[in-house]
Amino acid sequence: MSHTAELIAVGTELLLGNICNTDAQMISQALSQLGINVFYHTVVGDNPDRVKAAVEIARNRADIIITTGGTGPTCDDLTKQALADAFGKQLIFHEESARRIRQYFETYLPHRTMTENNLQQAMLPEGCTVLDNDWGTAPGCAFESDGVRVIMLPGPPRECKAMLEHRVIPYLKGLSDGVICSRTLKLFGIGESNMESQLHDQMLSMQNPTLAPYAKEGECELRITAKAETEEKAQSMLDPVEQQLRAQFGDLIYGVDVKSLEACISNLLREQNLTLATAESCTGGLAAKRMTDLPGASQVFKGGVVCYANEVKHNILGVAQETLDQYGAVSAETAKELAVGACKVLGSDLAVSITGVAGPDPDEGKPVGLVYVGLARGEQVWVKETRLGQARDRIRNSAVLTAFDLVRRCLTGLPVE
Amino acid sequence: MSHTAELIAVGTELLLGNICNTDAQMISQALSQLGINVFYHTVVGDNPDRVKAAVEIARNRADIIITTGGTGPTCDDLTKQALADAFGKQLIFHEESARRIRQYFETYLPHRTMTENNLQQAMLPEGCTVLDNDWGTAPGCAFESDGVRVIMLPGPPRECKAMLEHRVIPYLKGLSDGVICSRTLKLFGIGESNMESQLHDQMLSMQNPTLAPYAKEGECELRITAKAETEEKAQSMLDPVEQQLRAQFGDLIYGVDVKSLEACISNLLREQNLTLATAESCTGGLAAKRMTDLPGASQVFKGGVVCYANEVKHNILGVAQETLDQYGAVSAETAKELAVGACKVLGSDLAVSITGVAGPDPDEGKPVGLVYVGLARGEQVWVKETRLGQARDRIRNSAVLTAFDLVRRCLTGLPVE
Repeated sequence: MSHTAELIAVGTELLLGNICNTDAQMISQALSQLGINVFYHTVVGDNPDRVKAAVEIARNRADIIITTGGTGPTCDDLTKQALADAFGKQLIFHEESARRIRQYFETYLPHRTMTENNLQQAMLPEGCTVLDNDWGTAPGCAFESDGVRVIMLPGPPRECKAMLEHRVIPYLKGLSDGVICSRTLKLFGIGESNMESQLHDQMLSMQNPTLAPYAKEGECELRITAKAETEEKAQSMLDPVEQQLRAQFGDLIYGVDVKSLEACISNLLREQNLTLATAESCTGGLAAKRMTDLPGASQVFKGGVVCYANEVKHNILGVAQETLDQYGAVSAETAKELAVGACKVLGSDLAVSITGVAGPDPDEGKPVGLVYVGLARGEQVWVKETRLGQARDRIRNSAVLTAFDLVRRCLTGLPVE
Repeated sequence: MSHTAELIAVGTELLLGNICNTDAQMISQALSQLGINVFYHTVVGDNPDRVKAAVEIARNRADIIITTGGTGPTCDDLTKQALADAFGKQLIFHEESARRIRQYFETYLPHRTMTENNLQQAMLPEGCTVLDNDWGTAPGCAFESDGVRVIMLPGPPRECKAMLEHRVIPYLKGLSDGVICSRTLKLFGIGESNMESQLHDQMLSMQNPTLAPYAKEGECELRITAKAETEEKAQSMLDPVEQQLRAQFGDLIYGVDVKSLEACISNLLREQNLTLATAESCTGGLAAKRMTDLPGASQVFKGGVVCYANEVKHNILGVAQETLDQYGAVSAETAKELAVGACKVLGSDLAVSITGVAGPDPDEGKPVGLVYVGLARGEQVWVKETRLGQARDRIRNSAVLTAFDLVRRCLTGLPVE
């Protein structure tokens, strides 16, 4: 049976634009993977009547309602009260939740006094399934009434995310007869519209497994999702689709179910017991920052030099003054010397370099978006010239991904340039 | 007269969680500043019937409806058609918009062929005010019908933002008798809840001007908004509130209507004709990245060294081996030597250094969240020890802000440590 869900976010801070409704995006992605349709998101303020009005509309067009927010003591737990009212349920004191709230305060907030407001959070709709919250004080809950399933979650994204993953997804999977499995292929070096146009007919014709494209900043994802009676069967349905996509997109696919391109190269470096360093001009530290976003980066990343000024390129990384004078800082020659210099100075096995014009104005008579990316490994050195658009952020982001992709290609034996 | 607005975002990609509804946040902030209430946001997919249903609900609870998305050729411009249907309007070919679309293609997309679909975007509701789109192909429009004002905007955030700023805000200001002015005070070094509790009663009692707090990653904002007959009067109403907040929060306020702490210190450095460099361990390049997010950074930023490995701290930045051995990499002593070393090696007037434990695991027997931030200016050197929580991202972000704040304090003659 196919389900239709509606998400209702409760919070005046959303309507004031103080925060963005990232919970809705997170939950929508999860529901999409579970094969549950979402037709509407609604955002409503901390106002009981308007919350009730939103619920009345939602129950007539969805059979699953998931609320986020409006569960804290500051808004008098209004979501729970409004939903209980709408579905004619009493709120009942739940001793186990009260115990957990007391314990949470003792463990994590010893400097704060627990107030009676906090214990109000242990009042829950009669007959509900309690969704224990190990990441905050407000428990979630789920109940069914008049053919509609209601799930209430806390609003703070960190809590909402954990509750979604550990409580809601297992609960929703239980509604389904089968098992849903998915695999995400990550691609670099192909545009979203290009990928979509190559897959358009195929995506439309597929029912199970399904294929969904996602565009991320400078990268693309393809998610294959299959539903079957068992995990094994679902996985075996994913295999041929993955094979076919691999045949179609080849080495543009840098990984499956891997978090990011930097995670991919970190894994490769770790496996091969190698280290990386960076020399960055126009990206100003973004490559190093992304390498060190990953915990445990110190095993594979030595460090980097942000050589914004030409004197830093020369003094620290040893780029010859003649190279800078003759070819300019934004040149293939400088990119090569930066990479070789970074390898030496930072004592790493490999080093990438990035030098280009991030804009908004041209530099050295060179156009905005022109970027040279270098890669050195011992005596070997490669360089790639690219044009990366007009917007400063995008140029910098794409330049870093291009550099990481050179490392990937080098470490997997693919042609680098 | 007080207005009530509802935002309707059209796009299946929002319901699938491919993208987040950042347009709603952006527009909500703008409406809040204009004193227009927002009671609901709705998100609906690319489905004409469901869009119409959402509009029918919205017109009964709001007198301003702002739609985003569903205006491109890929979704057959369904928003415009649905809104025209709902309000009984014909779509009419708008020659000037067609001319602009043709021109946009010629100027910005010379490699792409304009299709008939694109010209469909020039079909607009009869009698509407056309909102010219200088940032994309789909024009926006506004019309009034049955006491409801409808405003349609393109969905891509970049276009939506520009249209909001240059078309919608002036249009909405025209609906109001007076002028609305606001000022944003930026604070660093105080928590949101602390700031809010200090201002709670005051915020509740204020009608005009109003005072609204915003929490940003590691920083806080206070926005004062006044409405008056003239710009001059509104500004003069803001002055005493700003004075009073300055008296209350003192040097925690780092700027008014300034974009960020890095923008603040970039301005100070430029005014004083000084340059900065960075030496980063646990933040791995984030400080340098943020300094170079700003166009024109090369005037004030020389570069930085990401000294993740201890050998880089020693070899490039000249931290004494004894210091590393005796006190460890995460220590006040190392932070000082890093800052002094960065100043020398990178040839800058000032340098900041950051060394700490970003986690997830303790290091050198030192706890997660312990960070030392150093600042050197010529022979002078300062260091600050801080505890910045448990989450890797937050620790890194707060460490960078702490470093920038030291620079600000140094350049404005405040005590640094």
